[in-house]
Amino acid sequence: MTDNTQVRLARRPSGLPTDEVWDITTEPVPEPGEGQFLLRTEYVSLDPAMRGWMNEGRSYIPPVQIGEVMRAGVVGEVVASRNDRFPEGAHVVAMTGVQEYAVSDGKGVQIVPADAAPLPTYLGTLGMTGLTAYFGLLEVGQPKAGETVVVSGAAGATGSVVGQIAKIKGCRVVGIAGGEDKCRMVVEELGFDACLDYKSGDLKAGLRREAPDRVDVYFDNVGGEVLDTVLPGMAMHGRVVLCGAISQYNADGGMTGPSNYMSLLVNRARMEGFVVFDFADRYGEALKEMAGWLAEGKLQSRETVVEGGVRAFPEALLKLFAGENTGKLVLKA
Amino acid sequence: MTDNTQVRLARRPSGLPTDEVWDITTEPVPEPGEGQFLLRTEYVSLDPAMRGWMNEGRSYIPPVQIGEVMRAGVVGEVVASRNDRFPEGAHVVAMTGVQEYAVSDGKGVQIVPADAAPLPTYLGTLGMTGLTAYFGLLEVGQPKAGETVVVSGAAGATGSVVGQIAKIKGCRVVGIAGGEDKCRMVVEELGFDACLDYKSGDLKAGLRREAPDRVDVYFDNVGGEVLDTVLPGMAMHGRVVLCGAISQYNADGGMTGPSNYMSLLVNRARMEGFVVFDFADRYGEALKEMAGWLAEGKLQSRETVVEGGVRAFPEALLKLFAGENTGKLVLKA
Repeated sequence: MTDNTQVRLARRPSGLPTDEVWDITTEPVPEPGEGQFLLRTEYVSLDPAMRGWMNEGRSYIPPVQIGEVMRAGVVGEVVASRNDRFPEGAHVVAMTGVQEYAVSDGKGVQIVPADAAPLPTYLGTLGMTGLTAYFGLLEVGQPKAGETVVVSGAAGATGSVVGQIAKIKGCRVVGIAGGEDKCRMVVEELGFDACLDYKSGDLKAGLRREAPDRVDVYFDNVGGEVLDTVLPGMAMHGRVVLCGAISQYNADGGMTGPSNYMSLLVNRARMEGFVVFDFADRYGEALKEMAGWLAEGKLQSRETVVEGGVRAFPEALLKLFAGENTGKLVLKA
Repeated sequence: MTDNTQVRLARRPSGLPTDEVWDITTEPVPEPGEGQFLLRTEYVSLDPAMRGWMNEGRSYIPPVQIGEVMRAGVVGEVVASRNDRFPEGAHVVAMTGVQEYAVSDGKGVQIVPADAAPLPTYLGTLGMTGLTAYFGLLEVGQPKAGETVVVSGAAGATGSVVGQIAKIKGCRVVGIAGGEDKCRMVVEELGFDACLDYKSGDLKAGLRREAPDRVDVYFDNVGGEVLDTVLPGMAMHGRVVLCGAISQYNADGGMTGPSNYMSLLVNRARMEGFVVFDFADRYGEALKEMAGWLAEGKLQSRETVVEGGVRAFPEALLKLFAGENTGKLVLKA
């Protein structure tokens, strides 16, 4: 075995997390102790939420500390084991971070069937991303058949799943994405009813055209101007699901709030946040249902794989914030 | 009988509604037709929501049209009647606007017992204001005994009732108001546990001190910086009740949104708007309960009465936006 290459947080970023916030370190590959196993990372998940984990201060999980290996979900293979539940050759999903190898005692680690779907899918549609889409839409958004669901970041990892689940539930689904190609993919390949390119054209007019009965559920991944443009069009008793605000995470001047928030009053609507971890006891049922939809062809999984190993993590994360991916962005370790 | 003096909207304001947005007109006092009655206005209700009614565009009720008598709730006496349900001498609450007299067919008009409470109370605690506090707090805020409720505009018409109802329900209640005198009144006379003066002192530190277990329900009447300061302190599954945004209604540059809105995600909290009209079929039970609390001394009603007749309406409305009142602000017609 070779060394274990790792990506550590060197300093807290202000704005975009450029190269100087990272340290690339190498260590000997660790040995699993009694009850532990050694995992070789195969794919690393890239998530907008990572930007928040890099900031100091109270959030839904503690910040990554300076000098720590960057937190990340990975899918990997057990290559040595002193734990019967995780035998050599098993494929697992774990939060072991941006490094080539890690030892684990199995806490919070799930075995996944490597023959049932491509490994990156277990970080995306059949992983935390899919679960976020599932519980955010169905539990917080509470869409009913015939209602109109709008989702931003529609071509992204979460948004692409949200829109497809909303279609399965019988809703009219309008995506919002950046660029013609993404919009075409969302409509032609994923089956959304429409997709609005916020980078070209008039989003407000587009919403009026494609959501003529107003917006019952808005699943927001982006925040900023897009959120502000959707808010006045909420339907009576509409629900805004706060999942993310990727347009704001790297804003140097701090977040901008939605100036049209009083539309929530006019429309007796609500804006509600959630964290997928709260639904942990229901992950099993959700994954089972989504795996069924995948098998039936009702749900398409999309992944963008970046090559280059864990050293390419800093660059891959910038691709995420530049919106270069469609579907789930993962790094091949 | 004399002429009927009226205040009409002459043009739409930008910023504060100064004198030039109003026309004072006089007309002969109208005669009630068959099934109608003539009402002499005794008190006119002054409400922050009036500023919104003066703007063009979609809201929860249509805007007041240019040239129309300004919309307002009033309490008055029936002085001539051709409608058996509203006999001469009865006191009624009606939405007949800023004028000395009006004819009505009784639609949306309620008779009130003039001997049970001072007439201005029927515009405040036992009127739309009290109902707004009651349903906004109890139905949207859903406070539970032992929880912490924070209310802005705590010395105002709605906030003063919200805080007292929250006390009745067994909550810890922290008010936010502008000025020491208001804060003293809120604590010493209305029984709030604490009141923070946002004009002096550090609101953030004050909240940390007075709401050490964080904020379960925030009832917002003001918006702007106060809302933004409270948001990060929301408790898990907290509820922000959007009732108003008086700090923003006259902002020339448009509304400012709450930049800390992603605290709703971190804390799995929600922000929800409501309009009291939606609870119309339950007004009776609510007013009965509040009248009981008033009679038992559990609820104090506060009113500030401005003299000067309907002609003084423009000036009185500016007093409201300057925060010069405590409790309900009414104009004596």
